Amino acid sequence: MMFRVRSVIQMGDRVMQRHMSSAGGRKVGFVGLGNMGGHMASNLIKKGHKLNVYDISAPACEALKAKGATVSKSYQEVAKSSDFVVTMLPNNDIVSETYKEMVADGVNSGTVFIDSSTIDPLVAQAVQKLVKSKGATFVDAPVSGGVPGAAAATLTFMVGGTNSEYDTVKGLLEGMGQKITHCGGYGMGQAAKICNNMMLGISMVGLSEVMNLAIRLGLDPKTFGDIVNSSTGRCWSSEVYSPVPGLVPTAPANFDYAGGFATNLMTKDLGLASGVATASNTPIPLGAMAHQVYRTVMAHGLGDKDFSVVYDFLMNQAEKKK
Amino acid sequence: MMFRVRSVIQMGDRVMQRHMSSAGGRKVGFVGLGNMGGHMASNLIKKGHKLNVYDISAPACEALKAKGATVSKSYQEVAKSSDFVVTMLPNNDIVSETYKEMVADGVNSGTVFIDSSTIDPLVAQAVQKLVKSKGATFVDAPVSGGVPGAAAATLTFMVGGTNSEYDTVKGLLEGMGQKITHCGGYGMGQAAKICNNMMLGISMVGLSEVMNLAIRLGLDPKTFGDIVNSSTGRCWSSEVYSPVPGLVPTAPANFDYAGGFATNLMTKDLGLASGVATASNTPIPLGAMAHQVYRTVMAHGLGDKDFSVVYDFLMNQAEKKK
Amino acid sequence: MMFRVRSVIQMGDRVMQRHMSSAGGRKVGFVGLGNMGGHMASNLIKKGHKLNVYDISAPACEALKAKGATVSKSYQEVAKSSDFVVTMLPNNDIVSETYKEMVADGVNSGTVFIDSSTIDPLVAQAVQKLVKSKGATFVDAPVSGGVPGAAAATLTFMVGGTNSEYDTVKGLLEGMGQKITHCGGYGMGQAAKICNNMMLGISMVGLSEVMNLAIRLGLDPKTFGDIVNSSTGRCWSSEVYSPVPGLVPTAPANFDYAGGFATNLMTKDLGLASGVATASNTPIPLGAMAHQVYRTVMAHGLGDKDFSVVYDFLMNQAEKKK
Amino acid sequence: MMFRVRSVIQMGDRVMQRHMSSAGGRKVGFVGLGNMGGHMASNLIKKGHKLNVYDISAPACEALKAKGATVSKSYQEVAKSSDFVVTMLPNNDIVSETYKEMVADGVNSGTVFIDSSTIDPLVAQAVQKLVKSKGATFVDAPVSGGVPGAAAATLTFMVGGTNSEYDTVKGLLEGMGQKITHCGGYGMGQAAKICNNMMLGISMVGLSEVMNLAIRLGLDPKTFGDIVNSSTGRCWSSEVYSPVPGLVPTAPANFDYAGGFATNLMTKDLGLASGVATASNTPIPLGAMAHQVYRTVMAHGLGDKDFSVVYDFLMNQAEKKK
Repeated sequence: MMFRVRSVIQMGDRVMQRHMSSAGGRKVGFVGLGNMGGHMASNLIKKGHKLNVYDISAPACEALKAKGATVSKSYQEVAKSSDFVVTMLPNNDIVSETYKEMVADGVNSGTVFIDSSTIDPLVAQAVQKLVKSKGATFVDAPVSGGVPGAAAATLTFMVGGTNSEYDTVKGLLEGMGQKITHCGGYGMGQAAKICNNMMLGISMVGLSEVMNLAIRLGLDPKTFGDIVNSSTGRCWSSEVYSPVPGLVPTAPANFDYAGGFATNLMTKDLGLASGVATASNTPIPLGAMAHQVYRTVMAHGLGDKDFSVVYDFLMNQAEKKK
Repeated sequence: MMFRVRSVIQMGDRVMQRHMSSAGGRKVGFVGLGNMGGHMASNLIKKGHKLNVYDISAPACEALKAKGATVSKSYQEVAKSSDFVVTMLPNNDIVSETYKEMVADGVNSGTVFIDSSTIDPLVAQAVQKLVKSKGATFVDAPVSGGVPGAAAATLTFMVGGTNSEYDTVKGLLEGMGQKITHCGGYGMGQAAKICNNMMLGISMVGLSEVMNLAIRLGLDPKTFGDIVNSSTGRCWSSEVYSPVPGLVPTAPANFDYAGGFATNLMTKDLGLASGVATASNTPIPLGAMAHQVYRTVMAHGLGDKDFSVVYDFLMNQAEKKK
Repeated sequence: MMFRVRSVIQMGDRVMQRHMSSAGGRKVGFVGLGNMGGHMASNLIKKGHKLNVYDISAPACEALKAKGATVSKSYQEVAKSSDFVVTMLPNNDIVSETYKEMVADGVNSGTVFIDSSTIDPLVAQAVQKLVKSKGATFVDAPVSGGVPGAAAATLTFMVGGTNSEYDTVKGLLEGMGQKITHCGGYGMGQAAKICNNMMLGISMVGLSEVMNLAIRLGLDPKTFGDIVNSSTGRCWSSEVYSPVPGLVPTAPANFDYAGGFATNLMTKDLGLASGVATASNTPIPLGAMAHQVYRTVMAHGLGDKDFSVVYDFLMNQAEKKK
Repeated sequence: MMFRVRSVIQMGDRVMQRHMSSAGGRKVGFVGLGNMGGHMASNLIKKGHKLNVYDISAPACEALKAKGATVSKSYQEVAKSSDFVVTMLPNNDIVSETYKEMVADGVNSGTVFIDSSTIDPLVAQAVQKLVKSKGATFVDAPVSGGVPGAAAATLTFMVGGTNSEYDTVKGLLEGMGQKITHCGGYGMGQAAKICNNMMLGISMVGLSEVMNLAIRLGLDPKTFGDIVNSSTGRCWSSEVYSPVPGLVPTAPANFDYAGGFATNLMTKDLGLASGVATASNTPIPLGAMAHQVYRTVMAHGLGDKDFSVVYDFLMNQAEKKK
């Protein structure tokens, strides 16, 4: 499935790949060796960095050891022995707890912590304050591109931090990704990711409704898709990632909605968007409704399918069988 | 305001303008000389066609007479004396009634009727049957581009009819517009317009939510707008017509949401989409919700503003005043 | 299933049954002998009225003939030979067309037409004008109670007309129903039915969400149901018609959502509500969303189930199987 | 405004007030002396309990001292000197932090902690575990009834805990309230409050839409309100708390939506509902949409008005001025 997601990223990416140094030789700690983190850590080894890893899963650590990493005994040990520390963890609470533990005994003032988890911007800002209080540096740098992007080192990183911090981390991140965007101050990497994905989530549900309606009215999907793409309805989903089988050959729609960006993950991101919108009392009627639609798709057992499966879910199921 | 909308259309239009003949010399009837129709009829006169017009408003007829048109005494008279008849009327009922009256006494079999009103595709199909039963030809050809597009002859026409009927009308329509798209059989021009505009309506509400949220989270609007435009959240609204003042210089947001595409008209189009979705039992959760949001905007007295005013409506009104 | 719906009506009905005359002896025309109309016409025969019926289905006419009705050859014949004419037809267009045909040749000025179809109030008002223009009387009188209510003569009638017209038709309607409500002028019977059913449709989706959420949070459904019913969340759906199996023994939830008020019909009524809200530019965010939810339920093949099946639809389908 | 809310509670309350002992004489700690807590603590003093209070606001402490309470120097001191401790705090984080501090040095095993704040059920469950780990008892007991209910000792308490714990706290709570409901195990008081209020929030938006639509269609508000109340659309909001001025004399609608239950607070409760629905992946389309509608009402400066102001917000603002 890798080629599909990669092509998606390349089409989404209009920024020239910068040929800045991602040359190795740095001591890099890596915490969180799951589906994403394992690949990212491997890529850093390939670039020649000295990796020092830790994960609560011993097998995950062993796998990286086999590729040349050193395995630490604790978060603190990783932190104290590294120039950079990259964390890739599942949620707000685990990020908070891990950082508390990791910096509890103090850290070297030169160490730069990079959190690539997707979490609430407010949590990222709190962690930044904690790390700063210990004298070190922290930036948030969530990614898009999924497991295939992690494997192929073609991720997009959205960085929140100062200009000089951005310059400091860019080279390292280019060892794991293709496009490194500076989004603003602390937490703004997270904010940009969440907000962009909310727009994506809305567009996909909207496009799915529109395509279903167009087809029921008698329009040819291909003809109408072309009209949308050259008109005011066009969006990334219609041009690059159409949920209608047969329209964009590389899109998950043509592979029974396998691979791609799972509905579960889109729903998680919309949950983060919903949380920050609640905290800031920002009305998001369509964001909230798209969230509920994906949640209903999940309730019907389709959480592991690409999020464009919402097109199929909204279809008349009886007519589909015909 | 004309330049704004014109630029919008040009940016939305990736299809090369075809240099087919829109040369004059035909006898063209025109029914419905309102804000749109008056300009369209004028443009046909400029192209050298002989115009025969009718409208229930005598002053509207006089205005066209001053430009060289002949004024008929009835719908029937217009129809019987023309090679082509263009109708530009406000809604389903008026289109149905007008055509019933217009063809009641029979028509010449060579006459081609072109309805450029925006109506329900099912009504368009019923009118086509009626006209065909009298031996003549009918196509639906609704437009986008608004009054400025009508004035400047830069409209987009979405045509529903056979291939040969499309070829027959294209030259004439090029006298009033820039882009003539063949969408499919009878009613498919209407279907394409309604469906595309539903996508546009959804994108604009979604983008407005996302931009409001991003700004409240601390993102710089310009920086975040650029991220969206080079990422999976991009859409026509974000690239060409941003609802946030200062991001796209030509967009109505920079002119207090004056001009452009009125919220009233977007709401009307979403009403048509809602109607055909109800008739075909197609679920359109975001389309329906966007419709209600625009309707609430109207209830608050903003119906005449460009539909991107929804961004302003969803904002915290107290903070706006600061 | 009859007992279930009957009990529902009785619980919903706090108005004492009036013992006014529904005594027979009148000449009553009946047009539309479907699932509802057939039962209603039979009940009028039982009350001693002389029935004169017409339906495009010959077998439907024969069935009533077997019960003592006279079968007419046309709508006009029914109308001209009756003191009262009751119509029970499927939708706006058929009601309009039928009345046009029925009164085309004129009617007796003393004839009272009663339309018990569920249609748009504006259509009802147009039909009233048509009938009045012929010198006769028309009221709208849609019903609730479904097929079982029609069979058991326990329908509720919602009447739109003048006070004296209401007094005129009440006795006759009591031959088919239990509760005859005067809602206001022409069309207001339809308006009341549509608006009340929109509230019901919203309450049921809302309650289904709340019960699903409560149960997932660990609340006992019975305990929580009692809390809601003695608190600010109470509504007819929670007290009388709970969508959760086991809470209200007579509710369709306990019979696999069979019988009751079909999702298809609730969706049709919400379609009418949506139409009049569009025509009057009234924002109905929850009404519109409930409409889309029922439509999605229909798309998943559950249109014939009672509308409370939405509770089951929103449930986690994997957990349900456990 | 007190009489209004009191009457609301009495009408909502069908359970007979139990005449169990709320007799004083116990040592009661009280933490959180805000708008609600100040009244509640006062009422406990009136019942003859010995109050020991603490709040970060010195004036709030002084006010209670003037009524006979002892003021402690810390949370720990309150906890260690009390048979019962009641906490009334603003949100999840403050409840968590306060309990951590309060029990840090250990507590007497006989002390019973009662949290009447409105928070996430999961947070309540975590606090219960913390308190239990120190050997003491904790129940959650959020309230409804607002400031007037707190002042008049007519609150409703929703208790989460074991049967015997419920029996233990009931008498004390009756010193501050009128109705003490046992909702289930730990956190279930919170769950019941949140879920019931979500139903209330949905009903009120739905009813507001329906009443607006009914009036635009020509129905008399009073007549239609009576129809709804004797039909399947009835709900607490329509019977007791109508958002339409003139229908229920005691409702805030008749006092320019002053007093009652503020839109801000309804929005906060829907935020909690949204959070637990996200955590449990439960689809709540109407709950989410109602949440967004109230949030939009807040954005337009109406957050301090009673939540039934949504009726006014959805109205055509131009027609309102007429």
